[in-house]
Amino acid sequence: MNCPIPQDQLDEIYAFAIDLARKAGKLLLERIGERNVDQIYTEKENAVDLVTQTDEDVESLIKTAIQTKYPTHMFLGEETYAKGQSREYLIDEQPTWCVDPLDGTVNFTHAFPMFCVSIGFIVNHYPVIGVIYAPLLDQLFSSCLNRGAWLNEKRQLPLIRKPSIPPMPSNAPSKCIFACEWGKDRRDISDGNLHRKIESFLNLAAERGGRGGKGGMVHGVRSLGSATMDLAYTAMGSVDIWWEGGCWEWDVAAGIAILLEAGGLVTTANPPDDLHAPIEPVKLGSRLYLAIRWVP
Amino acid sequence: MNCPIPQDQLDEIYAFAIDLARKAGKLLLERIGERNVDQIYTEKENAVDLVTQTDEDVESLIKTAIQTKYPTHMFLGEETYAKGQSREYLIDEQPTWCVDPLDGTVNFTHAFPMFCVSIGFIVNHYPVIGVIYAPLLDQLFSSCLNRGAWLNEKRQLPLIRKPSIPPMPSNAPSKCIFACEWGKDRRDISDGNLHRKIESFLNLAAERGGRGGKGGMVHGVRSLGSATMDLAYTAMGSVDIWWEGGCWEWDVAAGIAILLEAGGLVTTANPPDDLHAPIEPVKLGSRLYLAIRWVP
Repeated sequence: MNCPIPQDQLDEIYAFAIDLARKAGKLLLERIGERNVDQIYTEKENAVDLVTQTDEDVESLIKTAIQTKYPTHMFLGEETYAKGQSREYLIDEQPTWCVDPLDGTVNFTHAFPMFCVSIGFIVNHYPVIGVIYAPLLDQLFSSCLNRGAWLNEKRQLPLIRKPSIPPMPSNAPSKCIFACEWGKDRRDISDGNLHRKIESFLNLAAERGGRGGKGGMVHGVRSLGSATMDLAYTAMGSVDIWWEGGCWEWDVAAGIAILLEAGGLVTTANPPDDLHAPIEPVKLGSRLYLAIRWVP
Repeated sequence: MNCPIPQDQLDEIYAFAIDLARKAGKLLLERIGERNVDQIYTEKENAVDLVTQTDEDVESLIKTAIQTKYPTHMFLGEETYAKGQSREYLIDEQPTWCVDPLDGTVNFTHAFPMFCVSIGFIVNHYPVIGVIYAPLLDQLFSSCLNRGAWLNEKRQLPLIRKPSIPPMPSNAPSKCIFACEWGKDRRDISDGNLHRKIESFLNLAAERGGRGGKGGMVHGVRSLGSATMDLAYTAMGSVDIWWEGGCWEWDVAAGIAILLEAGGLVTTANPPDDLHAPIEPVKLGSRLYLAIRWVP
């Protein structure tokens, strides 16, 4: 990717984004003691689609900091978007911040540690900077174009894209860890998202030869309750495969930045008509993603 | 539970167990950089049932320390047991250490952070001390009879059994986080464990009224790849419900100790014939467990 922003400016933006993610994570930690399953959230689409005051406060903190420091940059945040009228894809070629103040809100309301703040920075439709911070785990995943992808800014093992990541198993998806989420659509209808997802998950889990030849015998099926954390762990190589449908840009912008800088692959989750065609990189906004970790 | 070991001796054993778990965790961290998916493990029952040299070395470290410090105590460890001839239930009324040196071996081989060492101490069939340490998360869950259950020895929020745990939702299992594992049995047969498990998981996930009235609309379905971690988070109240079949004593001894001391409930996962009968506490060795977190 040929970025019109000079590297030294990009490095400065990267340092700012890391600092901002840590500040946002601190606020999340302060708020977690106040959780109360029956009271602190508002249901959105249904009883498992939540937003809390914390989501809004953290987004406000991030948005204010960005608009003060970089007033010419565009901003797209989950909560800002939800309050707006438009449902169009809003990212153009301009430098744009794409932010999820709290991914894994259900986890957050239960003090289950798989929640995070996600800050992506996009230029010419390419996510050039990504920072994901899970404060209860104190795990900060980050990347900047040409600067590599890192866990906890090089302080902690395993570093991303280092020898600690083994080769992809020769008979993948066997021996792979597959991450997936059950999602918010819980309608019990045969062609609904719930049943279609579970069919796919079962195919990956079942023994080789099972499921009409589709059995993948993956090492493990993991569901963390945060697509952003799934993607961060895929970038790190702890998860080998992740797919999800219905993601918004703020769910994946930072994670895709980190995964790409770590050498991973992200494409659409629908198989192409021609299985031998070149794999197309995914476009942000496609809603349907398949990510594969870096293969040494 | 009326423990024949005086409290001051129990406190000493508790401190020893915590120290031992930290030492074992340190060894796990040292070994994680050496992982290589294709080489370092041995398959047991099938391609997803693993044991590594690390499992054996960590058990050896723990067993040696215990036998040196408490030569009269019995010891039951996963790897020791696997090498033995007997398949009988081996815990009697004597003071017995029950140890899983590495739960979540698949996660460990992928550097996915949900793996842990689990050390339980059982007297008269009751788990009186439990220590679970997840070194990559630096989360240590622990309990001792009459001493409460704690995360990171009181240093970190949320503490177990503190106001940060909200009430159980009034319409549970809705609004609950449900933890479950896909397991190692991946045979694609309709009455096999894989399909029976997924049927149960689907019931809990589906909308209210769905699945022939069985739909539970839980907040989230989580699979971490470690029954021990599932149970630790249930003790903490981050997970509300967990069930599992086929667990061994070392998978659950420490977790049950912590859950019980935190005020949680653990029983068999098969519903009784009489739904109004008193709920019986589970017996270690029953293999089939249902755990519910503490309800304030």
